[in-house]
Amino acid sequence: MGDSAIGEKAERTVAEEVSRLVESAKELQDAGASLISRTSAEENALRQRARALDSTIRRFRSSVAASLHNGNLDSKGDEKLVEELYKASYILSEGDAAAFLPSKYHGWFLNMFLGPISVRATRKDVKLKVKQEYNNFRDRTAFLFLFFPSLLLVLRSWIWGGCLPALPVQLYQAWLLFLYTGLALRGNILRVNGSDIRPWWIYHHYFAMVMALISLTWEIEREPNCAEKQRGVQLFLQWAIMQGVAMILQNRYQRQRLYTRIALGKARRMDVVWGETAGVEGQLWLLAPILFILQGFEAYVGLLLLKTAVVGGVPEWQVITCGILLIIMAVGNFANTVQTLMTKSRFKAKMKKNKSKVDLNLGSHP
Amino acid sequence: MGDSAIGEKAERTVAEEVSRLVESAKELQDAGASLISRTSAEENALRQRARALDSTIRRFRSSVAASLHNGNLDSKGDEKLVEELYKASYILSEGDAAAFLPSKYHGWFLNMFLGPISVRATRKDVKLKVKQEYNNFRDRTAFLFLFFPSLLLVLRSWIWGGCLPALPVQLYQAWLLFLYTGLALRGNILRVNGSDIRPWWIYHHYFAMVMALISLTWEIEREPNCAEKQRGVQLFLQWAIMQGVAMILQNRYQRQRLYTRIALGKARRMDVVWGETAGVEGQLWLLAPILFILQGFEAYVGLLLLKTAVVGGVPEWQVITCGILLIIMAVGNFANTVQTLMTKSRFKAKMKKNKSKVDLNLGSHP
Repeated sequence: MGDSAIGEKAERTVAEEVSRLVESAKELQDAGASLISRTSAEENALRQRARALDSTIRRFRSSVAASLHNGNLDSKGDEKLVEELYKASYILSEGDAAAFLPSKYHGWFLNMFLGPISVRATRKDVKLKVKQEYNNFRDRTAFLFLFFPSLLLVLRSWIWGGCLPALPVQLYQAWLLFLYTGLALRGNILRVNGSDIRPWWIYHHYFAMVMALISLTWEIEREPNCAEKQRGVQLFLQWAIMQGVAMILQNRYQRQRLYTRIALGKARRMDVVWGETAGVEGQLWLLAPILFILQGFEAYVGLLLLKTAVVGGVPEWQVITCGILLIIMAVGNFANTVQTLMTKSRFKAKMKKNKSKVDLNLGSHP
Repeated sequence: MGDSAIGEKAERTVAEEVSRLVESAKELQDAGASLISRTSAEENALRQRARALDSTIRRFRSSVAASLHNGNLDSKGDEKLVEELYKASYILSEGDAAAFLPSKYHGWFLNMFLGPISVRATRKDVKLKVKQEYNNFRDRTAFLFLFFPSLLLVLRSWIWGGCLPALPVQLYQAWLLFLYTGLALRGNILRVNGSDIRPWWIYHHYFAMVMALISLTWEIEREPNCAEKQRGVQLFLQWAIMQGVAMILQNRYQRQRLYTRIALGKARRMDVVWGETAGVEGQLWLLAPILFILQGFEAYVGLLLLKTAVVGGVPEWQVITCGILLIIMAVGNFANTVQTLMTKSRFKAKMKKNKSKVDLNLGSHP
C-alpha cells in the first residue's frame, strides 16, 4: 500500500515533467514559426530593394553607354561614371546582398535530376566551401583519370597479351559516366551559386557524359587481330592519360586562385582580382600550351576514330559518334581556352592602366 | 559653349545619382550582412534548444520504457505518458521547429554527386512542394515506363520480324539509367528533408541503376535464332510494362495521401494520420495484390535469366548478374511491402482503440 503511494507520487512527478516537455515543444514550435516568418518578411524586403537597385544600375549603364555613343559625355567623366557603376554592381553581386538577388534559373539539368529543391547557399563561406570541394573532387578524380587508363594499358601489354578484355574497360567507362554526371551536377550548382564558370565547361561535361554512355555500348572485340580492332579504345585511353595530367595542372592553378581569394578577405572579388593574376601568372603560361597540345591530340583521336570507322568497312555508329563528339569537344575547348586567355590579358592591361585609381577607391571602401 | 555648360550640368547630376547608387549598394550590403548574422545567431539558439529538447524526450522515452519493464508504472498512467511523449516529439519533428533539429546526414550518394551543398528546405511548404514534384516526376515517368517497352515489343513483332535491333533497346536502357539516377537523387533529397521514405526504396533505385548500367553492356544479338537469344531482353521488357502499371497505381495512391495531408493543414502530421487511412484504404487493398503479383513476376524473370545463362552454354556475366539483381529486388520489394501493410494495420488498430482519447487531445491543441 505504501509502495503503491510512492509509485503514484513518482508517477505524478514524471507526468508533470512530461507535460512540461510538451509545453517546451509547443514553445519551440512557436519560436521557430515566428523566426521563419519574420526572417522571410525581412528577406522579401531586401529582395525587393536588391531587385530595384539592380535594375536601376542596369538602366544607368545603358544610358551612360548611349550618352557615350552620342558624344554627350566627355571621356574623362564617362570613365569615372562607368567605374562607379561597375563598383556599385560589384558590391551588389559579390557581397552579402547577393543572396537577395533573384536566383539564377536552375536549368533543365538540375531540374531533371534534383527537382525543385534549392541548391543555393546563402552564406558566402558556404559558397566558397562548395567551390573548394568542387576543386578537391576534381583533384581526386584527376589522379584516377591518370591511374585507370594507365593501368589498363599496362595490363594490356603485360598480362592480357595485347588484347583488352571487355569488363575492365566497361568498368572504366561506367566510372567515366558517373564522374561526368557528378561534374555536370556540381558545375550547375556552382553556376547557381554565382560562379562565373563558362557555360562551355558544363556543355563539355554533357558531351563527355554522352560519349561515356555510347562507349559502354561499344563492343570490345577479342577475336584474332584485336590489336587492329581495339585501336579506337587504345587511342581513347592514351588521350585520357593526357587529360589526367592536364586536369592535375589545371586544378593546381585554380586552387591557388581560390586560396588567394579566401586569404584576401572572403567576399570582395574586387580585392582579389589582383592576387588572381599576380601569384599564378607563370603557371598559366605553362598550362596554356599543355592544354593546346591536349586539345590537338583530342581532335586527332577524333579524326582517327572517324578514319577507323570509314576504313574498317563496317562503320559502327558508336565509333563515328564518339569521333564527332571528340572533335566538337576539342574545338570547343580550344575556343574557350583562347577566350579565357584573351579576357585575362585584356583585363590585366586595363588594370595596369587604372591601378592607382582603383587602389584609391578600395581605400575608401568601409 | 552654352551647350557644353548644359552637358556639364547634366553630367554632374548623373554623377551624383551614380554615387547615390554606390551608397545604396553599400547600405544594402550592410543590411544583408546584418540580417544574415542576426538570423544565424537566432537560428543557432533555436538549434541548441531543439537539440536539448530532443535528447530530453529521448531520455524520458527510454526511462518510461524501463519503468514499464520493471512494473513501476501501471498501464493506464503509462499509456498516457507514452502518448504525451509521442505528442511532444511529433510537435518537435513535424512543425516549424523541425528546421532547427540537426540535419540528417546527407549520405554518400548525395555527397558523391552534389558535394557539400545543402538540399534541405527550411519552409514546410517548400518541403511539401518537393514531395509533390517527386510524385509528379514519378507520374510522368510511369507512363513512359509503360510506353517505351510496349513500343519496342510491338515494333519487334510488326516491323523488326521478331528481332530487336540494338540501338532502340540501348536508348531505352540509357533512359532507365538516367531515370533511376534521378529517382535515387530525389529519394535521398526527400530523406534529408525529413520524409519517412523507407531506406529500401532508395537501395532499390541503386540496384536498378546498376542493372540498367549492366544491361547497356549486354550484347543484343541479331544472328539467326535471335528469338531464342533475345529471350532475356524480351522478358525484361514485359516485366517493365507491368512495372509501369504498378507505378501508375502506386502514384495515384500516394498522391491522394499527400493531397489529403496538404488539405488538412499542411504541417501537423497528427491531424493527417486519419485522412491517410480513411480516404484511400480501399485503393491500398487493390494495390497490394498487384504489387505482389509484380514482385512474383520480377523474381520469375530473374530465375529465367539465370536459367538462360546456365542452359545457353555461354554464361554471360551480365545475364547472371541481372538475374541475381532482379531476385534481390523482388525479395526486398516483397518484404518491404509486407512491412508497410503490417505497420498500417497495426497503426489503424491502435488508432481505433484510442480514437476518442486522441480526439480530445487534438481538441486541446492550439
